[in-house]
Amino acid sequence: MSMHFNRLVLPALLGASLLLSHGAAAQFGSAPLGAGPWDMQTYQAKINVSVVARGLAHPWSFAFLPNGDLLLTEREGRLRLMHDGKLTPEAIAGVPSVHAEGMLGLMEVLPHPEFVRNQYLYLTYHKKLSDDPKAIAFVLARAHFTGNALTDLQELLVSDTWDGAGGGAARLAFGTDGKLYMSLGATRDGAAQETNSLRGKILRLNEDGSVPADNPFVGKQGYRPEIYSMGHRNPAGLAVHPTTGELWESEYGPNGGDEINIIRAGKNYGWPLVSFGRDYPGPFISSVPWKEGMEMPVATFSPGISPSGLAFYTGKDFPTWTTSAFVGASRVGQIPGTGRMVRVFFDANGDERSREDLFTELKQRIRDIRMGPDGLMYFLTEEQDGALLVIKLAAK
Amino acid sequence: MSMHFNRLVLPALLGASLLLSHGAAAQFGSAPLGAGPWDMQTYQAKINVSVVARGLAHPWSFAFLPNGDLLLTEREGRLRLMHDGKLTPEAIAGVPSVHAEGMLGLMEVLPHPEFVRNQYLYLTYHKKLSDDPKAIAFVLARAHFTGNALTDLQELLVSDTWDGAGGGAARLAFGTDGKLYMSLGATRDGAAQETNSLRGKILRLNEDGSVPADNPFVGKQGYRPEIYSMGHRNPAGLAVHPTTGELWESEYGPNGGDEINIIRAGKNYGWPLVSFGRDYPGPFISSVPWKEGMEMPVATFSPGISPSGLAFYTGKDFPTWTTSAFVGASRVGQIPGTGRMVRVFFDANGDERSREDLFTELKQRIRDIRMGPDGLMYFLTEEQDGALLVIKLAAK
Repeated sequence: MSMHFNRLVLPALLGASLLLSHGAAAQFGSAPLGAGPWDMQTYQAKINVSVVARGLAHPWSFAFLPNGDLLLTEREGRLRLMHDGKLTPEAIAGVPSVHAEGMLGLMEVLPHPEFVRNQYLYLTYHKKLSDDPKAIAFVLARAHFTGNALTDLQELLVSDTWDGAGGGAARLAFGTDGKLYMSLGATRDGAAQETNSLRGKILRLNEDGSVPADNPFVGKQGYRPEIYSMGHRNPAGLAVHPTTGELWESEYGPNGGDEINIIRAGKNYGWPLVSFGRDYPGPFISSVPWKEGMEMPVATFSPGISPSGLAFYTGKDFPTWTTSAFVGASRVGQIPGTGRMVRVFFDANGDERSREDLFTELKQRIRDIRMGPDGLMYFLTEEQDGALLVIKLAAK
Repeated sequence: MSMHFNRLVLPALLGASLLLSHGAAAQFGSAPLGAGPWDMQTYQAKINVSVVARGLAHPWSFAFLPNGDLLLTEREGRLRLMHDGKLTPEAIAGVPSVHAEGMLGLMEVLPHPEFVRNQYLYLTYHKKLSDDPKAIAFVLARAHFTGNALTDLQELLVSDTWDGAGGGAARLAFGTDGKLYMSLGATRDGAAQETNSLRGKILRLNEDGSVPADNPFVGKQGYRPEIYSMGHRNPAGLAVHPTTGELWESEYGPNGGDEINIIRAGKNYGWPLVSFGRDYPGPFISSVPWKEGMEMPVATFSPGISPSGLAFYTGKDFPTWTTSAFVGASRVGQIPGTGRMVRVFFDANGDERSREDLFTELKQRIRDIRMGPDGLMYFLTEEQDGALLVIKLAAK
């Protein structure tokens, strides 16, 4: 099996923009979002979509608090609060300084499952550890949030460093085992296969950031014990399946190599040794898409969709959506203005049956998707003027 | 490697229709085609699309004659003529009786490269050889066409038989080597791997239907000498690359396993041993998408697009389209009303760079695509009221 490892260090995004002969704005090609609301006839449901909040600067993640308040991150480093359905103009104080550059910055916000009792919030972000241009790390931090500001912030984990190239998503999810899972991207270098690096991995941690004794590589020479799975390129979404309890991941792959994976202890998902996709300048990453010992994705996307957030629908309004996974997409096949949400119809066995594109007419890059405590699905657009939207049953 | 071979005999299309709870009309979901013409801003070109002919009943293929006349097949068994831009109401006489049922019937029409000299036309179709329900064969025939009727029709090749399940595309192309290539589908049974069957293969023949002495399996025990490549599911499009001279194929795979392949002598393309796709009821066809000795596709489609005709653009109006492959699509991800044309941007090295969906707004299933002698690209819709359309440069 031949492998084009050396090509991974090429400036992939630059290659794509040269190909398309466009600057950043035209490259993304999103349209200004209209006022809405919009009624849309989808394949199996007539839905109503409306704007909950707008004017967000590159929002990346959002989370509901038990009292119905909503937290949103803006990539440049602001944590925003929505209270009583209104966005508080001032950012929440106490957020640490982050390294915001390109696709790096403040990423995830996640309340502790027992937030009511302990008021813990988790954040992930990038941080520059020194003046060295290769000193950029992923950080997982925990802080108290009592409604006004973050206090008692602790860095629970600081990753090994790199130059920031290729960005690096950092999602969080609590598993059904009560452990905290964190994804760390490693798009361009070989870190995803390096067992002494935390990048290109999904980690499993105790709620205080310590390493669970039953992690798959605990005590194994040369392995970081935090590692739960390896071989990930840019794991841009994490979601716990509502019935099986499995951890599902959406992965931003190379061109035509985007994936949905089910994450299992100690497994290797192949990047950059094997991939279904091509490098941006064209050649396949690997001459074959699989080799012995590597896990297969449960879904691939070809053309690529530049995936981000991942969610399962758990509401009551759309029974046909119940076992589907929803993935945010920035653009399809590198074509500007093709952002959308992709519904992948999995059946109760976890087998894919069909797929549907949603919201193509809005021409928005979709960054994150979450179920609200009200049983409604919310999604966030990744734009300079980003918005949070909600999906409801359309009036008859 | 485990393999779900037994599932291949399940009624796959029935499974899909049960899943979607729709009858045939709703399953395809095409809209009535408007009058046009339509101006459309595509990614790199502003195009104008107009109707050349309509009222065709399930047209499958078309071909230009050197005098500018156009021939079209209708699946039920009619060969139609367009002369001076007008469709002749009567079908051309002399077409043999075909077995028209489901997706079977009259398929391809192709003039001999030296038609002016010899007036030879080639046809492919399905024929029932006896009352046995499993006696359906593919036929390749050649006849003279002098402007009014087919005469001197000869059956050059009659394949082994099956029950007709899963349909079976039968495309033709003359290679740069002057040989006639014919594709034969084998969707549901294991014939694509059976070396004594012509189904699930691409054949290489002399212009009179005899076997070239330099075919890859000539003289090999247990192999039909007509076979050029094997392991094909439903090879729904064939096109010679305009600069490399390679034979390219679009292949209707299982759900999520549609492919574009470059066809090479003696190679095995894997169906049904390995596939990127899933069976319609859900499980993957193979636990891994590749094994040693099987050829990799140059492009896969996930979600599936139900591909048909394949063409390269060789006109002058759209220089950015020159190395792109265009594939007709019936529906994407099994969702009704999603027919379109997919442009796959290959670069001069044959590497894919990007992809673009065209004509989604027309909601037509696209069956065949060809370059005309006028340098314009034409395409055919697969509908009860099918149409031939042409793509031109839009007025400024």
